[in-house]
Amino acid sequence: MLADLAFTLESLRAAYARGITPEAVVEEAFRRLDALADPGIFLYEARHAALGEARALGTPDGRPLWGIPYAVKDNIDVALMPTTAACPDFIHVAEADAGAVARLRAAGAICLGKTNLDQFATGLVGVRTPYPVPRNAIDPALVPGGSSSGSAVAVARGLVAFALGTDTAGSGRVPAALNDIVGLKPTLGALSSTGMVPACRTLDTISIFAPSVAEAWELFELTAGYDPADPWSRPLPRRRLSPLPPAFEVVAPDAASLRTFGDTAQAAYFEETLERVAALGGQVRRVDFAPFYAVADMLYAGPWVAERLAAVGERFFDAPETLHPVTRAILAGGVKKSAVDAFRGLYRLQELRRRCAGVLGAASLVCVPTMPCFVTLAEIAADPIGPNARLGTYTNFVNLLDLCGIAVPTGPRGDGRPGSLTVLARAGEDARAAALARAIERGGTAEREESEGPGPDEIALAVCG
Amino acid sequence: MLADLAFTLESLRAAYARGITPEAVVEEAFRRLDALADPGIFLYEARHAALGEARALGTPDGRPLWGIPYAVKDNIDVALMPTTAACPDFIHVAEADAGAVARLRAAGAICLGKTNLDQFATGLVGVRTPYPVPRNAIDPALVPGGSSSGSAVAVARGLVAFALGTDTAGSGRVPAALNDIVGLKPTLGALSSTGMVPACRTLDTISIFAPSVAEAWELFELTAGYDPADPWSRPLPRRRLSPLPPAFEVVAPDAASLRTFGDTAQAAYFEETLERVAALGGQVRRVDFAPFYAVADMLYAGPWVAERLAAVGERFFDAPETLHPVTRAILAGGVKKSAVDAFRGLYRLQELRRRCAGVLGAASLVCVPTMPCFVTLAEIAADPIGPNARLGTYTNFVNLLDLCGIAVPTGPRGDGRPGSLTVLARAGEDARAAALARAIERGGTAEREESEGPGPDEIALAVCG
Repeated sequence: MLADLAFTLESLRAAYARGITPEAVVEEAFRRLDALADPGIFLYEARHAALGEARALGTPDGRPLWGIPYAVKDNIDVALMPTTAACPDFIHVAEADAGAVARLRAAGAICLGKTNLDQFATGLVGVRTPYPVPRNAIDPALVPGGSSSGSAVAVARGLVAFALGTDTAGSGRVPAALNDIVGLKPTLGALSSTGMVPACRTLDTISIFAPSVAEAWELFELTAGYDPADPWSRPLPRRRLSPLPPAFEVVAPDAASLRTFGDTAQAAYFEETLERVAALGGQVRRVDFAPFYAVADMLYAGPWVAERLAAVGERFFDAPETLHPVTRAILAGGVKKSAVDAFRGLYRLQELRRRCAGVLGAASLVCVPTMPCFVTLAEIAADPIGPNARLGTYTNFVNLLDLCGIAVPTGPRGDGRPGSLTVLARAGEDARAAALARAIERGGTAEREESEGPGPDEIALAVCG
Repeated sequence: MLADLAFTLESLRAAYARGITPEAVVEEAFRRLDALADPGIFLYEARHAALGEARALGTPDGRPLWGIPYAVKDNIDVALMPTTAACPDFIHVAEADAGAVARLRAAGAICLGKTNLDQFATGLVGVRTPYPVPRNAIDPALVPGGSSSGSAVAVARGLVAFALGTDTAGSGRVPAALNDIVGLKPTLGALSSTGMVPACRTLDTISIFAPSVAEAWELFELTAGYDPADPWSRPLPRRRLSPLPPAFEVVAPDAASLRTFGDTAQAAYFEETLERVAALGGQVRRVDFAPFYAVADMLYAGPWVAERLAAVGERFFDAPETLHPVTRAILAGGVKKSAVDAFRGLYRLQELRRRCAGVLGAASLVCVPTMPCFVTLAEIAADPIGPNARLGTYTNFVNLLDLCGIAVPTGPRGDGRPGSLTVLARAGEDARAAALARAIERGGTAEREESEGPGPDEIALAVCG
């Protein structure tokens, strides 16, 4: 029976109500992991610690995540577990929980271990790791997506109820699309970033992978909050997930500027998806997406690659052999950038921010495909840079523009591959993005009637307009 | 009679009501300038254009600055006038008004010309110019202060009713203190910065010099406003200048951390000034000012000097002989800074911002001496860097912390030299700072009763607390 238990918040809570123990759930999780025989998912399996925590939980105590198993990307500290950022030489045992992990622990969740990633969170493919590459949960010929590869696969495989990732350039969204799950990329500063290994310190956030929007949102609410110990934390209004308003304006790339790199199924599916957005009340305004692409291009062509170099530090110069060769090649782009380049990049970004704001106008949401196309292991083996860059088409600009977003499975495309839409909103408006994502999730009929009126745990604090 | 006319808004308006013509006022202004025989104040005298504008004004038309003569720092464009930024080789004739100048022109003000400055607005002394140095209006042995030297002296000498400066590190406050006038340094982004030659693009603002706080505030209200053409413009709430609230919390450096570089009169006078702040209802909390000094130190020791290099551009490398030698030496500090240095500087600033916010707590205002001490021409001749750096003690940190402020004459110190207090407030709270500055201005008795209740042109929209 446990073998059939879906690791969703709802079914786990029901199981616990029936008397199942957290210890049994943790054992089942590791049984599934062993059965999967994918050594690339976890870089550290915390079997012993997790079982100990499960036993220590005793009986249900009302905490919202009591006994819920989850995984943590290995660039986020969990006390007494090693952190490697997928660089074996970087290994150190964390003395304390990251701020976000501490909140989850306080809520009763059990961390099963640390998951694989593109080294130092630089990549969107999941193969830039010296460890075995996690297998894509949908199609073993595809890359697993990255950089939060192991976290996304762990959720997609049902090994955990949710997982923490990080997202600087799309690391919390692209792997969600590639493994057909939800990836919630919070507003920068909404979640504490203490205990997180930085990629681009000004653009990093911890992110959440879950099977559904409702679960991702619940976990976001439990994890978010101002942290005075984190200089990047921002005081943001707390919003509840509300039903979609009767009408709302959405911006989306027009057909001429949509980039799918020859993936005609993706282009056709995006049009279908926008029709569904319109059926949900969305007034979809198609725009030339050039300013957003211009921002996206700056992430690696501009000075921000120097942030990645700053994060890796002297290792790049003193112990380059400890770095993945592709990672090293990318970081090298930061060496020659001057402080003048850095400030000029900030000036250009400021101009582009203003242009993008003009394109958005009064629209509260932006809809994009999470990825322009799929990428196979063979493609990335043949060219380790190009296909990776393509995957960032609809994600690279998001943190530079201080938007929040959520990648949501919208049902299979015409060719059976999973479809994923990313809904973006302005900083602090995570709930607006989640509301549309929930309505369009998993190709459900998404009748507007179904989402009218607040549910039992919803309060209509935020009404989009 | 015109020779006795004070060039204040009030007296000029009264004169115009009596039938005096703008042409006569402009002629009087240039008569005063000629009589002063200080060729360092203006880099470009717009006699012909100003007289033409004055004639074209016709009869009073109700515009708020109808016929009011003013001056513009020569790093701000005025259409059809040359802009040099005190670098003769940089000279070019502006095709259009800077955004702030356009507003003043629309309000009826007449620009008399472009004023001297520390080259490319790099300096707080006013002597880093290849042109003659303007004479300090109080004591010819003192530096005029910079970088907005000519604008401050022009106002202090009564040549114009007000002047535009710029303020990155204190260029709109230090010369105000050195010439015993008011210097209003707006919130970053409150005034359009189109048509301004940048110094540090992320930290620059146009500033206002005027004889009194009331005038500076009126000019701020007329000049401020969101400008969609300026990527650095910010939509800010419009606040009116209100009376001081009955009680308000003020932070000030404690005696142990106050820096006056041996100027005991300045230290004693600051204590007296704080007693007056307390008498006005200020609950003065003395704090260790170390975090603010740490921010101030970053402006030239950190990566921001590279912004100055970025602003000067290829000239530094291709035509270094066109730069003032001291300016060139300072810009050289930016050459070796890397993009990694730049981002690390931003990270450190973010941490220090959080620390400073913690020191401020619930206080709405900060009071500091505008300068720690006076600087003489002899001192700066002996050491062109050190005394300049000292002048930035209480100004360098302000824009890095996104504060606004106003330097206000508070009456003579014990030794007869002018005393100046700078009142700082959070971004957007310019009106709070101005309210205290007005109450303590010019050593008036500053009876709290006098400022109770809104005056005829005041609306109590913003109440400090």
